[in-house]
Amino acid sequence: MEEVEVAPPQTMEVRLKILFTSLCRSDVYFWEATGQTPLFPRIFGHEAGGIVESVGEGVTDLKPGDHVLPVFIGECRECRHCKSVESNMCDLLRINIDRGVMLNDGKSRFAINGQPIYHFLGTSTFSEYTVVHVGCVAKINPAAPLDKVCVLSCGISTGLGATLNVAKPKKGSTVAVFGLGAVGLAAAEGARISGASRIIGIDLNAKRFDEAKKFGVTEFVNPKDHDKPIQEVLAEMTNGGVDRSIECTGSINAMISAFECVHDGWGVAVLVGVPNKDDAFKTHPVNILSERTIKGTLFGNYKPRSDLPLVVEKYMNKELELEKFITHEVSFSEINKAFEYMLRGDGLRCIIRMDA
Amino acid sequence: MEEVEVAPPQTMEVRLKILFTSLCRSDVYFWEATGQTPLFPRIFGHEAGGIVESVGEGVTDLKPGDHVLPVFIGECRECRHCKSVESNMCDLLRINIDRGVMLNDGKSRFAINGQPIYHFLGTSTFSEYTVVHVGCVAKINPAAPLDKVCVLSCGISTGLGATLNVAKPKKGSTVAVFGLGAVGLAAAEGARISGASRIIGIDLNAKRFDEAKKFGVTEFVNPKDHDKPIQEVLAEMTNGGVDRSIECTGSINAMISAFECVHDGWGVAVLVGVPNKDDAFKTHPVNILSERTIKGTLFGNYKPRSDLPLVVEKYMNKELELEKFITHEVSFSEINKAFEYMLRGDGLRCIIRMDA
Repeated sequence: MEEVEVAPPQTMEVRLKILFTSLCRSDVYFWEATGQTPLFPRIFGHEAGGIVESVGEGVTDLKPGDHVLPVFIGECRECRHCKSVESNMCDLLRINIDRGVMLNDGKSRFAINGQPIYHFLGTSTFSEYTVVHVGCVAKINPAAPLDKVCVLSCGISTGLGATLNVAKPKKGSTVAVFGLGAVGLAAAEGARISGASRIIGIDLNAKRFDEAKKFGVTEFVNPKDHDKPIQEVLAEMTNGGVDRSIECTGSINAMISAFECVHDGWGVAVLVGVPNKDDAFKTHPVNILSERTIKGTLFGNYKPRSDLPLVVEKYMNKELELEKFITHEVSFSEINKAFEYMLRGDGLRCIIRMDA
Repeated sequence: MEEVEVAPPQTMEVRLKILFTSLCRSDVYFWEATGQTPLFPRIFGHEAGGIVESVGEGVTDLKPGDHVLPVFIGECRECRHCKSVESNMCDLLRINIDRGVMLNDGKSRFAINGQPIYHFLGTSTFSEYTVVHVGCVAKINPAAPLDKVCVLSCGISTGLGATLNVAKPKKGSTVAVFGLGAVGLAAAEGARISGASRIIGIDLNAKRFDEAKKFGVTEFVNPKDHDKPIQEVLAEMTNGGVDRSIECTGSINAMISAFECVHDGWGVAVLVGVPNKDDAFKTHPVNILSERTIKGTLFGNYKPRSDLPLVVEKYMNKELELEKFITHEVSFSEINKAFEYMLRGDGLRCIIRMDA
């Protein structure tokens, strides 16, 4: 815990008071920084909810007091991606793991004794105040409880959108979800909302199945229990393959299995998990030719400013349950506990209260 | 040329009088039979037009005199694939390169002096008469000239449907077509019909470009002219990548290029060409994760009985031009000339007149 100075927002920036943040796997990944050339010191955290404290020049659609979710990808509303209905990969504000400064002046808004502390994923929410680009801020219904909807700022929307926006399973279909962490369970929740009749969860950790049932998972497959490729096991269970699969682990083998386990003729596999730098996705081209589809998605294809407020409304209308994703809650001073829970695979999301 | 006895059609079979057939690359591929364990002797040919001569038991929707196109994949109308709007990979009658007999009794309908001659792809159209399963017969408008629409029985529909049914380019988009043989040019024709504003043809044979212009191809790229991967060349030409690509060569490198050349966020690559047995499709998973899609298709996703009659109508309505695909015409006795044209890459389709 350190005292950090947070400079005022510049043109097209807003300064946010973060009320709740949660820990996402990516924070740990970039904190560990294995095989990366990391930028330090920086402030992690990218899944959060807060209130606008002040706005910079040119900001017209946000004002102090607005309830918001900061998002690690942005929506400038001007570029080809923002203008395409299909993409949320904004040219200006797309995910950038190496940039630790603001676009406006190429500098950080954080400092300790005049020394810059870098930003992370354009959000840096492990701070009571942070400065973000206006394109990375979703203004939401002020009636929505920020200590719940803050989890929509990254992982839950990522999994949910992968199913609802990309895999689009039909009612009555069979969906396989690889990885039953928060993102995978959000993908399962999407399948449940879509009316899938079978949701098959695949995970190496058998303990996850009980929790997974709350998210609509009907069957559980542990690759450790089988001595053949898991895509063959799934094909046997489903008379030739699943209708949709969603890969939420980042393991290259799971990606290949997720693709090869979908039914020929109509199966669609969606990749969500972030692979390693040197991974290669490899399959026999006949698997593709047999009318299978593979697609990837970032942040569930949601455009943060346009779409995230509507996801919050799904929660407000009780179409979407968020409480079951929140398994722990700690005060900011206990943030290291959140890391411990994550590292030992205990629970799903730990909410960190910034006011305590 | 040999005299062959053609037995009458059995249950759910029809005997066709073939009037016109054409030579498709697959005939040559299976005739050469490199790296295969081929079934010989058999009668090749699968792209054709003819008239129903007689029908077997249980055949209710065809009668002698009907004008038809035989198709190498079938449509039983009963299986899960036939009932799915997405698939044309009929469980009963899907492409089978090794089966040389009819399903009803596991025997051939062709014989010379009592010795069986095997079928090929369920069609065997290099014969004045052939017997096929009713599910592999599309009944078409009798006003359609069979010497033109016979090319819809395989290659042209394959390329056209890959664009119209699978890639689905929007008006004004940029489409790359890998391989400018008949299938690739039919894919380009689909892009032209869809209103694509740029159609980029990629081929190792520079001679193909002049012909390709007739099919709407606006730009030509020869990988031999570049010392970097062709996907990079295409990305530079198109400000980041094409909107759609269609791979019609069967070369694994072209498949990988066709995928990697589509734009992130919305690009869709469609594989059409038939790969070799030992090929591996390999790409970095981040290329997929960046919201690209890859799909495969067989016979352009057309269901032969339901959809092919409508493609014939597109020709009758002058939406689709077929004459430009037909570059040669020979009599049946000169069939070897058709093979020569194909082997030296001369022209596109050679119509073989069975009555001469």
